[in-house]
Amino acid sequence: MKLQIDGKIMDKPAVWWENEEVCMIDQTKIPFQIEIFRSSKYQDTVHAIKDMIIRGAPSIGAAAAYGLVQAIHEFWQQNNFEDRLNEAYDSLLSARPTAVDLKNGLDFVKNTPNLNPEIALAQANLFSKRIKDEGLKIGQIGKKLIRDDMNILTHCHTGALALVDHGSALSPLVQAWEDGVRFHVYVDETRPRVQGKITSWELAQYGIEHTVICDSASGLLMSRGEIDMIILGADRVTRNGDVANKIGTYNLAVLARYHKIPFYSAFPRSTFDFSTPSGSDIEIEERSKVEVQEVSGYSARYCRKETISLYLDNTTFRNPAFDVTPAELITGYITSLGVLSVSELQKIISKTKSV
Amino acid sequence: MKLQIDGKIMDKPAVWWENEEVCMIDQTKIPFQIEIFRSSKYQDTVHAIKDMIIRGAPSIGAAAAYGLVQAIHEFWQQNNFEDRLNEAYDSLLSARPTAVDLKNGLDFVKNTPNLNPEIALAQANLFSKRIKDEGLKIGQIGKKLIRDDMNILTHCHTGALALVDHGSALSPLVQAWEDGVRFHVYVDETRPRVQGKITSWELAQYGIEHTVICDSASGLLMSRGEIDMIILGADRVTRNGDVANKIGTYNLAVLARYHKIPFYSAFPRSTFDFSTPSGSDIEIEERSKVEVQEVSGYSARYCRKETISLYLDNTTFRNPAFDVTPAELITGYITSLGVLSVSELQKIISKTKSV
Repeated sequence: MKLQIDGKIMDKPAVWWENEEVCMIDQTKIPFQIEIFRSSKYQDTVHAIKDMIIRGAPSIGAAAAYGLVQAIHEFWQQNNFEDRLNEAYDSLLSARPTAVDLKNGLDFVKNTPNLNPEIALAQANLFSKRIKDEGLKIGQIGKKLIRDDMNILTHCHTGALALVDHGSALSPLVQAWEDGVRFHVYVDETRPRVQGKITSWELAQYGIEHTVICDSASGLLMSRGEIDMIILGADRVTRNGDVANKIGTYNLAVLARYHKIPFYSAFPRSTFDFSTPSGSDIEIEERSKVEVQEVSGYSARYCRKETISLYLDNTTFRNPAFDVTPAELITGYITSLGVLSVSELQKIISKTKSV
Repeated sequence: MKLQIDGKIMDKPAVWWENEEVCMIDQTKIPFQIEIFRSSKYQDTVHAIKDMIIRGAPSIGAAAAYGLVQAIHEFWQQNNFEDRLNEAYDSLLSARPTAVDLKNGLDFVKNTPNLNPEIALAQANLFSKRIKDEGLKIGQIGKKLIRDDMNILTHCHTGALALVDHGSALSPLVQAWEDGVRFHVYVDETRPRVQGKITSWELAQYGIEHTVICDSASGLLMSRGEIDMIILGADRVTRNGDVANKIGTYNLAVLARYHKIPFYSAFPRSTFDFSTPSGSDIEIEERSKVEVQEVSGYSARYCRKETISLYLDNTTFRNPAFDVTPAELITGYITSLGVLSVSELQKIISKTKSV
């Protein structure tokens, strides 16, 4: 992704290997500071994952793969290499209770035949590259939907920071903009965790015109003809094409249908969930009430990040992390295999399953 | 309204006259502190209105009426009484660019025949009482819609603090609860200004069971059958029955229609806007970007209210203050004249107009 640090423009992914270190853009500081976190030991990488210095399941998978490379480099010459490697593997695996990506990244490195430090690094690089390529392809395919003067609404954060590079729903926007298409993006704030601030920052790196709105302002904009298209990501896509994604996705899908606005979900192939028949089989995760009760941001008074409480301590909250949008409300699925209809998606899923 | 201060339970309106002072529950401190602000001069009442110690158009109207009583008491014996009175009137009138209520409150006192301090106070009390009675009536009529075990969703703040006492959409909930009906309220956070924290606090005064949710979680709850009814307020109701209300109201109305959930708007008669034919004639006010960019709350670190920024300073925002819900999406209008259908509402509006 394009990154502006101290006026210099660089091209950096969310995580990479450099000078025997795992480097990550510190996502706990975005957008207020742009800092690169450098991990020289696998234990530091474990902490980086735990402390959410790196976020987004695919990015976490890549970071974990590089973390295992660090362990292999460190313990390769030792007698108890196998034990130490397993220890590092377990430690990385338990750093976050995320999707299957973390385990995939670790196994991609660990299960290589003739494992040695060089081969391990090549594998981690390959794992990372595959995610990047997937994001790039999503962008190249999805950008064809975007025309000059469009107003496009997006929700949550689906950019390069989460997917090593390029992103899912943001990738078509970036690719179209780099091609010279000129449009405008409405960025949903996305309470409770306000991922809109990260999306806004990432769009700003490319100079993409955008405006942040509160989540509940979308209906007004749609009713006044100010939204032409909605593109957002997916956390899981079930066999029938239902999409589980960040809370608020379903509200937008219903509003889009009511206003006849095209509604697209963009995601890498690793998001296909072959084992779940439909969205109604998904249990909705309820996350900590603290995410709703408290917010963090920049305090001008103290010149640093501060956390405040918006509510009294004894307030009761519900904080469902995501919702489910039924396939019938989705205009198309933007994937590396094309912009698919639900029947095309189902065909691909059933084929992939039978292989 | 019921108020718990230091374990003592009191019954207080949002604003009242006591010992030659205008007393107000300080709304800048709710919910973190419950304090009564006492104004002994009309200038202090002007500042209380300006600084939003008192909020909500009807409550502001009542406070202004009492402010004018203060001026009349102070200047009654002076030679230049008329001049000083007009000065106070102008000063109170310009304290907030609110709806017609502020002017109505002032005129209700000022235009009384044989004006003197006692008559002025009686008029202010009467103005305040009429608003209270209206809220109470809305509650008595609206409570019949509420049954045991219902889950009711509300948005923004529509309680006693805003309407001197009882409130609009909250009044039926309070009245039903006091009658022993046992239900549960989902309270929308209501970004950007998080009025959900005030609604939550007001419901808690009565022990009404409730849960705060982010605005974008409503769709999930509706899709899972966890919302039986939506009741919210109105800022303006136009001649054809369209409702302008806090941003996010329209999103809920569309979602309610999609899920076949009854959707009610509750409001006092002063909210009828006879001069505007329909919602499409209303210009949507765009408020300061600061309301979205910054939030205020309680800092546990500093033990006081702090304000933080959620976004970078150069971020672009849109902050529409309200949206318009077309009459066709509204199940019924809860008023002091009954729970009205759109045709009943229109009939009353046209009759009232011809009087």
